[in-house]
Amino acid sequence: MDDIFAGRLMSSPVESVSPEAPIEGAARTMLNHDIGSLVVVEDTELVGILTTTDYVHVAADSTDTDTATVADYMSTGIVTATANDSISEVAETMVENGFHHLPVVDDEAGVIGMLTTTDLTAYLSHAVPQLP
Amino acid sequence: MDDIFAGRLMSSPVESVSPEAPIEGAARTMLNHDIGSLVVVEDTELVGILTTTDYVHVAADSTDTDTATVADYMSTGIVTATANDSISEVAETMVENGFHHLPVVDDEAGVIGMLTTTDLTAYLSHAVPQLP
Repeated sequence: MDDIFAGRLMSSPVESVSPEAPIEGAARTMLNHDIGSLVVVEDTELVGILTTTDYVHVAADSTDTDTATVADYMSTGIVTATANDSISEVAETMVENGFHHLPVVDDEAGVIGMLTTTDLTAYLSHAVPQLP
Repeated sequence: MDDIFAGRLMSSPVESVSPEAPIEGAARTMLNHDIGSLVVVEDTELVGILTTTDYVHVAADSTDTDTATVADYMSTGIVTATANDSISEVAETMVENGFHHLPVVDDEAGVIGMLTTTDLTAYLSHAVPQLP
């Protein structure tokens, strides 16, 4: 297990959306791909992340989903991981920040994957034989 | 680590909602408690679970959040755990079913807690020292 790092568990490619996209269309993209987050990219730059939790805010606000945009609800305080980060390191980052999704970035290639609490749960279910 | 079971990692008490409750009010309950799921209970019986993912469907449907009810969007094919289930067992159940939340039930007391992929991620970050 010594070679298990974030890059091994992340999902890729990552689906992206523009900050100007309607919140409703972004919801359909998530459902079509069966994923819980989209990276928000403007001019190839990562400017935010939109997750299922943001849609709870949309409903709580009685938002008009035709006119509200991704920028209205995305999170901009983005915390990222790199492919070489250790599993315990990314798990700690997620828990400390209360995040379920962590974009995995590369200095040159930009966003190369997404790591989720589900990916870590899958790892836990298969790769830790000494667990109870 | 031999004594780590679902009951040790679950969150409790669990917030519940009626199937007749408006979807918008249920969203506010989730946000107020900073949680990603509510158990749906009718006459003390667990009839469903409502999660952040269901709110992506709400937005994709352009639903009127004032009139739609929890029953319209909750999942009814509920999979549960018991407090004595092992961590690897509950992790596998979550991954196989694509669930992020697993109500923990007791034959007599009903729903006694909620176990999430975040709880398992927290466990992974702290309790598995031999991880890379």
